Amino acid sequence: MLGGGVGGSRFVSGVRAGYPDAELTVVVNTADDITLHGLRICPDLDTMAYTLGGGIDTDRGWGRAAETWRVSAELAAYGLEPAWFGLGDLDLATHIARTQLLAAGHSLSEVTRLITARWLGHDPRLRLLPMTDDVVETEVMIFDPSGENERRWVHFQEYWVRLHAEPEALAIRRTGIDHTRPAPGVAKAIATADLVLIAPSNPVVSIGPILEVPGIRDSLRTTSAPVIGFAGILGGAPVLGMADRLLPAIGVAVDAAAVGRHYGSRVGGGVLDLWVMDTADGASAAELERSGLNVAVTGLIMTTPEATAEFIRLAVKAVV
Amino acid sequence: MLGGGVGGSRFVSGVRAGYPDAELTVVVNTADDITLHGLRICPDLDTMAYTLGGGIDTDRGWGRAAETWRVSAELAAYGLEPAWFGLGDLDLATHIARTQLLAAGHSLSEVTRLITARWLGHDPRLRLLPMTDDVVETEVMIFDPSGENERRWVHFQEYWVRLHAEPEALAIRRTGIDHTRPAPGVAKAIATADLVLIAPSNPVVSIGPILEVPGIRDSLRTTSAPVIGFAGILGGAPVLGMADRLLPAIGVAVDAAAVGRHYGSRVGGGVLDLWVMDTADGASAAELERSGLNVAVTGLIMTTPEATAEFIRLAVKAVV
Repeated sequence: MLGGGVGGSRFVSGVRAGYPDAELTVVVNTADDITLHGLRICPDLDTMAYTLGGGIDTDRGWGRAAETWRVSAELAAYGLEPAWFGLGDLDLATHIARTQLLAAGHSLSEVTRLITARWLGHDPRLRLLPMTDDVVETEVMIFDPSGENERRWVHFQEYWVRLHAEPEALAIRRTGIDHTRPAPGVAKAIATADLVLIAPSNPVVSIGPILEVPGIRDSLRTTSAPVIGFAGILGGAPVLGMADRLLPAIGVAVDAAAVGRHYGSRVGGGVLDLWVMDTADGASAAELERSGLNVAVTGLIMTTPEATAEFIRLAVKAVV
Repeated sequence: MLGGGVGGSRFVSGVRAGYPDAELTVVVNTADDITLHGLRICPDLDTMAYTLGGGIDTDRGWGRAAETWRVSAELAAYGLEPAWFGLGDLDLATHIARTQLLAAGHSLSEVTRLITARWLGHDPRLRLLPMTDDVVETEVMIFDPSGENERRWVHFQEYWVRLHAEPEALAIRRTGIDHTRPAPGVAKAIATADLVLIAPSNPVVSIGPILEVPGIRDSLRTTSAPVIGFAGILGGAPVLGMADRLLPAIGVAVDAAAVGRHYGSRVGGGVLDLWVMDTADGASAAELERSGLNVAVTGLIMTTPEATAEFIRLAVKAVV
C-alpha cells in the first residue's frame, strides 16, 4: 500500500480489517516532514503507526489519544515560534526519539523500524517504510500577504496548518526530490507484491511525492501485481482534508475522474490497473473507461474499518 | 554570587530577600550539564532560573512545580535510555528551547538570557551567567561493578542520579576545563562588584568547576570587593546533597574548616576574605583564624529565604 495522512491511515485500518493475515508493507509519504524546535517530525509515518498500534486520536485523526499540550504551552511561554503546529506531549516523545536516533546516525527507515516496533509489535507481516530516507519537503507558492503581487514559497505544513490552506496555491514544488532514492525495501516490496493499493490520500501532497521519488513510478509500472487506486475526491470534494485547494496548483480538476486520469492507466503510461471511484462520481466512469482506464464504482466513504475493508475487497475482486 | 545546584538556589533566594534592591549577577556552574535524548540540559542554570522566577518545585528543590512526566514515560516506552534522569514535561520544554537556540548558533550565555527573560523578567539588576559558554563536564572515576578492580569514568549525573553516589568516588576530572574561558560578563562582574558571595554549594562539583575556569580564580584574587564564602558542610555533613561522597576524591576532609582551607585565604593565595561556618563547627574557628583565614560563625541552615538573608547580612557586616 502507498499512502499518507489521515486518509491513508483510515484506509490502512480497512486493509488490516479486510486482510488481517496479509503481509502488508505501507510505503508512507515523508514530504510533509518538517523540523520544528530542532525536532524532526514525520506526521504521516506517525499517523500511520499510531493508527496501526491503537494509539491514534480517532476523533482528530492525527496525534495521540488522551493527549496533553503542556510542553507546547511552555515553548510558547518562552516565545519560541512556531506555536501554530500542534505538538502534544505524547506525540513529542516520538519526535524526540526520532531526532535522537537520526542524530545517532540511523537512517529514517531504521528509525521508523525502531519506533514502530512499539506500535506494530514485531509482526514480520506488517511494515511501515518511509518512501525515502532522504529529506524532501513539499512547498507551496502563495501571494505574500505583505507585498503587492509578491510571491513566496512556504512549507506545506505552514500552508496547511498555519494558513488553513486559505491562500490560493499558485504552485507546488518538492525540494530535494530529484536527489532522493526509494528507501531500502520499497522497490522490492512493490516488485514482489501480489497487489498494490494506492490509498485515497491527497493526490498532490501524499501520493504525489511517493510517485515522484525517482524509481518508484518505474517500480509500479513494472510490477506483476495489479495496481489499484482509490479516489479521495467524492462528488467533486475531498472526503477528508483540503485537496481541493491544491489540485488546481498542479492543473488537475477537483474531480475523481480527473485524478484518475492524472495517475493514468498503466497501458497508457501511468500507474493504474484499476481506478475506484465513489458512486457519486459514477456518471464519469464510462467516459474514463473509453479513455483506457479500468474503473470500478462503489461507495468509498470510510466510516469504519469494516466499511473500508468492504470496498477494498470489492475492488480487489475486479482485478484478481 | 557564585554557585550552583539546590544549595546555590536556596542561597540566591536569601540574597534576593536580604538585598532586594542590589544589582545581582549569579555566575552559575555548568559542569553538571549533560546531553540526554539529544537535548542539552543545564540543571544548575535551570534550578537557579526557576527559583528566582517562582517556578521551582520547592519540595524537591529542582525542576518545575506541578510537574508531570508524560514525555519521559513515552521515551521509556520506546526503550530509549537513559530513563534514570528526571525529565519532567515542563522542564523538558526548557531543554528543547535551549537546544533549539544553541543549534541556531546562539552561545549558552545568549540562550540563558533569552530563556531566563521569562523567569527574571527584564530587571537589569538581575542576571544569570553561565560560568563559561564552552562545554565542560565533570566525570567521576568509580570501580566498574562488572570488572575486578577495573575503573571507569562516568558523567557526574550518572554518578549522582543513576548511582545515587553509592560507589566510592576515586577521582574527579573536568573534561575540557583547560580550554574554557569565562562567559562574557563574568570577569567584569567580579572585577566591578562591591561584594562577592560564594554560595554554600558543593565544593567539588558546583564551586570547584567555577574556580577552575581559567581566569575566574584570578578575577577573584584581584577584585577590590571582599569575597565571602559560606560553608555547605555543617557539623561534618553536607546540609544538602552528597558532598561527603566527593570531597575525599579531591583529598579534602568532610569538614567545614577543611573546605575553608581548600578555598584558602586571599592573603595566602586562595580566594576568600571571609569564611562563614555554622555554629556546629565553631570549635575549629580559632585554629583556622590562626592559619590566616578570617572566619565568622553563625547559624547557616537555610530554612527560609529570610533566615538565609539574616546570616548573609551578618557575614557582610563583618567585612564591609
